[in-house]
Amino acid sequence: MSLTKLFHPSSVAVIGASRKKGQIGREVLTNLIESFEGEIYPVNPKVDRLEGLKCYGSISEVPGEVDLAAIAVPARIVPDVFRECAESGIKNAIVVSGGFKEVGEEGAKLEKELAEIAEENEINLIGPNSMGVISTSSGLNATFAQEMALPGNISFMSQSGALCTAVLDWANEVGTGFNHFVSLGNKAVLDEVDLIKEWDQDEKTDVILGYLEGIQRGSEFVSVAKEVTKTTPMVVVKAGKTEEGASAAVSHTGTISGSDDAYDAAFAQSGVIRAQNVEEMFDYGSILSHQSPPKNRKVGILTNSGGPGVMATDALEQYGLELARLEETTLKKLDGVLSSLASRDNPVDLTGKADEDDYRESLEYMIEDENLGSVVAISAPAAIVSYPVLTEILADVQGNTDKPIVGTLMGGKLSQESQENLESAGVSNYFDPARAVRALSALVEYGRIRDKEISTPVNFSIDNQKVEKKLKEYRDSGKRVVGLEGLELLQYYGIHTIPTKFARSAKEAKEMAAQYDSPVVLKVDSPEIIHKSDVGGVKLGVKPDEVYGEFRAMVNKLRKNCPDAEINGIRIQETVNGEEIIVGMKRDPQFGPLIMFGLGGIYVEVLKDVSFGVAPISPARAREMVESIDAFPILEGVRGKSGVNIESVVEVIQRLSKLSMDNPEVQELDLNPVIATSAGARVADVRIKFAD
Amino acid sequence: MSLTKLFHPSSVAVIGASRKKGQIGREVLTNLIESFEGEIYPVNPKVDRLEGLKCYGSISEVPGEVDLAAIAVPARIVPDVFRECAESGIKNAIVVSGGFKEVGEEGAKLEKELAEIAEENEINLIGPNSMGVISTSSGLNATFAQEMALPGNISFMSQSGALCTAVLDWANEVGTGFNHFVSLGNKAVLDEVDLIKEWDQDEKTDVILGYLEGIQRGSEFVSVAKEVTKTTPMVVVKAGKTEEGASAAVSHTGTISGSDDAYDAAFAQSGVIRAQNVEEMFDYGSILSHQSPPKNRKVGILTNSGGPGVMATDALEQYGLELARLEETTLKKLDGVLSSLASRDNPVDLTGKADEDDYRESLEYMIEDENLGSVVAISAPAAIVSYPVLTEILADVQGNTDKPIVGTLMGGKLSQESQENLESAGVSNYFDPARAVRALSALVEYGRIRDKEISTPVNFSIDNQKVEKKLKEYRDSGKRVVGLEGLELLQYYGIHTIPTKFARSAKEAKEMAAQYDSPVVLKVDSPEIIHKSDVGGVKLGVKPDEVYGEFRAMVNKLRKNCPDAEINGIRIQETVNGEEIIVGMKRDPQFGPLIMFGLGGIYVEVLKDVSFGVAPISPARAREMVESIDAFPILEGVRGKSGVNIESVVEVIQRLSKLSMDNPEVQELDLNPVIATSAGARVADVRIKFAD
Repeated sequence: MSLTKLFHPSSVAVIGASRKKGQIGREVLTNLIESFEGEIYPVNPKVDRLEGLKCYGSISEVPGEVDLAAIAVPARIVPDVFRECAESGIKNAIVVSGGFKEVGEEGAKLEKELAEIAEENEINLIGPNSMGVISTSSGLNATFAQEMALPGNISFMSQSGALCTAVLDWANEVGTGFNHFVSLGNKAVLDEVDLIKEWDQDEKTDVILGYLEGIQRGSEFVSVAKEVTKTTPMVVVKAGKTEEGASAAVSHTGTISGSDDAYDAAFAQSGVIRAQNVEEMFDYGSILSHQSPPKNRKVGILTNSGGPGVMATDALEQYGLELARLEETTLKKLDGVLSSLASRDNPVDLTGKADEDDYRESLEYMIEDENLGSVVAISAPAAIVSYPVLTEILADVQGNTDKPIVGTLMGGKLSQESQENLESAGVSNYFDPARAVRALSALVEYGRIRDKEISTPVNFSIDNQKVEKKLKEYRDSGKRVVGLEGLELLQYYGIHTIPTKFARSAKEAKEMAAQYDSPVVLKVDSPEIIHKSDVGGVKLGVKPDEVYGEFRAMVNKLRKNCPDAEINGIRIQETVNGEEIIVGMKRDPQFGPLIMFGLGGIYVEVLKDVSFGVAPISPARAREMVESIDAFPILEGVRGKSGVNIESVVEVIQRLSKLSMDNPEVQELDLNPVIATSAGARVADVRIKFAD
Repeated sequence: MSLTKLFHPSSVAVIGASRKKGQIGREVLTNLIESFEGEIYPVNPKVDRLEGLKCYGSISEVPGEVDLAAIAVPARIVPDVFRECAESGIKNAIVVSGGFKEVGEEGAKLEKELAEIAEENEINLIGPNSMGVISTSSGLNATFAQEMALPGNISFMSQSGALCTAVLDWANEVGTGFNHFVSLGNKAVLDEVDLIKEWDQDEKTDVILGYLEGIQRGSEFVSVAKEVTKTTPMVVVKAGKTEEGASAAVSHTGTISGSDDAYDAAFAQSGVIRAQNVEEMFDYGSILSHQSPPKNRKVGILTNSGGPGVMATDALEQYGLELARLEETTLKKLDGVLSSLASRDNPVDLTGKADEDDYRESLEYMIEDENLGSVVAISAPAAIVSYPVLTEILADVQGNTDKPIVGTLMGGKLSQESQENLESAGVSNYFDPARAVRALSALVEYGRIRDKEISTPVNFSIDNQKVEKKLKEYRDSGKRVVGLEGLELLQYYGIHTIPTKFARSAKEAKEMAAQYDSPVVLKVDSPEIIHKSDVGGVKLGVKPDEVYGEFRAMVNKLRKNCPDAEINGIRIQETVNGEEIIVGMKRDPQFGPLIMFGLGGIYVEVLKDVSFGVAPISPARAREMVESIDAFPILEGVRGKSGVNIESVVEVIQRLSKLSMDNPEVQELDLNPVIATSAGARVADVRIKFAD
């Protein structure tokens, strides 16, 4: 359903426009009158005229067509009013009234009613409990905020209305403008997914910023955002680290992973840049709204003073950028500009003796240098340079090049005076060189996101009948947690496992052991024993001729340690030496299957050196997951040890992703350990938890 | 030498006060006239009067006593002028002229001359190449900056003059004041160590901030700052990550550690809080200048809107603080204030319906709560609350309590208008809740620093004669790198080593092996072979009766692999199973011995999971080093393995610190591995590099 008329209405009704100033309906009306050039219809049965406009008794009495209704009546009558809007054929509405889900059960019921009406009648609804919507390109201020936004090419949404008011006040002060500015409220109908879809198509939106406290439609968000971020950069602050509470996790993956890991993985996969706080979000938003990503990570630093140049250089390293090596020709040209005091090497330090012409000339020479992709242009206040003139220079030079220039005209008042001119010239300016470089790194990061090839999850062919049969077997057994018997399910998904035999008795075990010519591993098979190693249910390095005795010894010990456990028998595995890894899955309520990868043992349990992805996982993402753990060099081979077959590890992740997507009843799963060698990766043990 | 008159002179001479406006000497004069109430003597042989003051031909002609000389003549004549000052008995001087070390060799010579004159005549010299000195408490503005600082209790020093001008402009805008404000220049004489000593004694300085690019007197800095930070908080930005260049390191410690690690360790040991950039430094400076540390890490959050409360809560976790659990009585009192919409649990969310009285009452109740140590007070702009009134409330409540209140009145213009009043009421204010919490965490951190018991390095008793004899032996041998033969030196320092026998021949080895009843380790002894394992010079798990054969096999292999190496023989060690750790030392040019600690193998080489300390290292610091690596739980014992004797590991670090302090000729050293068990820690192998 198109949102065009929500953001670009020709006529707006304000239902609940009150006589009393300060009341939110009245504020919305006043704001509209000040900003909006289309028709405005105040609705209030108790009043004839408001602010010079005729008031209507109800929405049905309004004579013209109404593109957008802003509803500000008390919560308990909102559903009736909203129904009336539906009957009048209104397709876009904002409910600014509070008193819904946020106040408890009663309010939640009202909110559900709204959602139902909206669905039945195909109405685009923002809110309830929203501060409203601003759209500068259509002069629309349908909010009860105290200020209107400046025009701009950033569209911003916020799940916090209060943050909207703070951001507006701040943005107007520093000269940051917006195209659309939306207070999402309780997201009864329209949410972030709808807005980013719409804004992606919107020519006047070049950057999307969002403050979100949660994303309900996780998988849809990922698939939509993945497309959107190919053309429109997105920066999001996700606040509110959900408390997991006392979890009944039976897997390492369940214990270690949290909802924030799912958000991190989802943002990484969908190309959304995650900012840690609001300041960072707007720092990134500013540069992304002005500039295209540079062609490389190599940065030139131009400064009229050493210290700030040093700070910028430090920051390059911190944020993963590089100091460009200037071309010989550039160095020669710079020689012609500078006094003997300067450093012509990057960072180019003009010293405090450089005047504005020196600054311009040097900046132009640097921009021409083929080695660098962007320039950080720094100045400290000095008698010899005026910030208004430097501002002109930055604007001029920027006007003639695609290479991004980031300004760092340092100072307080001096800097602020130039801020607005710099912004409108398309140059972001930051007080601190470190902040300038951090923002530049976000621009470079966006370039990486934009240019990354889309990698599509592989649709491995699976024998679904076999899978269904096996799952039925587990269901019929009544077990909700399965151990080694889960290996078969993995095999159906093409995940290699270490050959495992099942012996019900010591005698049977002995016969089987005769087929081995090197030591084997014994593992108890018991539905009640989950942590096998802890109770003596695993024995490594058992010589084939000792299997009989070890079987009996293990069973005896377990009868003592776990008197209530039913022991089915013992599984015999050949010994495989390799790197132990763990691949696991936990079902996240928002994003679905969250896949975890890490090296086994200490690396997971002590160092928490793991990576996450949300299924479905593409080959490229699976590889990223493997490469992004700190211990990755171990898999490549270190200290004279040869590496493991990385591709086979990457494939296990993808196949587990497929298994998780196909079978919602699998709630949690650990492949632990998977033994990876130069030949491949095979699962040695598994634990699967099914939904109740 | 007291710096009192440098900061509080009764009279100042400006040498090089020029007729030409804009020239730095003239600017210093103008600034002084505008600010300073004592005597001012311009010195310039070519002028009679300047700005209404009589000009003197030379400093010797000035009639009165001159407490401070500001020198602004061209670099080449500065030494002469400075000598004249010395002859006139002047004891404090600032050289604002540039053209010294920063321009090359010629300038460096001039600078050395200045330093010599200063030393001979006991003159306190700031600069050269300094922007000057401001001292608001004596109305002194002896700089060529365009602005004077506001009064305050922060003293600031900067190694970058340009940063001084930028900071001044910014600070005046936001209302941050200073007591002393010093541009350090080239630090020919006075440096950061002198200033922090002086400022520690200064009643009007409550916080010391510094931007430094290097610290030459590293050990002195550490020992002075350690004392100073017990009463005066220090926050430092250290810029300029030194490139190590192609290092000839022979040890892991040498390879892994950089100068920035030394700075980190030095700051940690001396209680200096390191800020990553200038914004962070002033965020911390502000709160430290207003508040004493809270009694605990538990924080109350008061907000009139949910979103910012969520952001603050997130930030608490990020910065190591805790959300306080409010007392039952507080909750009851809050029940009386709030509408039904609010959350009375911490974070206390008053919602946008709360007015100023609600805010005040709630804040007062929270402050009374015994469970919390501090409060973050947040507001978003709303029609119902005025920031000037909230400012008064915060100021009032803060006036009646020792518990720090941190303000977060969010917004742009609205917030800025309140900023100055908040500052003067002693309440820091930050736009972003995350920045407020980060600043609060610095205050909490300072509390930890202030209250930490001073731990003194142990002066282990050592037989110096034996040590000297052994060192002479190494010297006489001409070896600059020693291996296993270095174990003896360690033993003299009370560091336990694994008993090692030296066999010159296979036959000798065989005889020695007869004394062992379990497998041993063989290691080649050759001055040329440094990386023994890489060439086959180490063999583990050799059964005593195989020693003869393995000796021969190893020697044969090494003859082939390293044809030029002289092989003295082979060392035999008993096999000890335990956790492998590494303790190493590298001599840092600024801070002296830099001690590194980590777990062996993968943990150091791949994960770089190490900690650093600068010698001399106290017991408490050594323990911190051990506990601060990520893999520390492994030493405590995990996955059913018992832990190691931590105290013995802590002692190895201290004894190595002592060895490094005592013997400057030891340049680099690795104890690698040290095998730690529940019984203790013993060195299995060592590599020592001596100074040439």
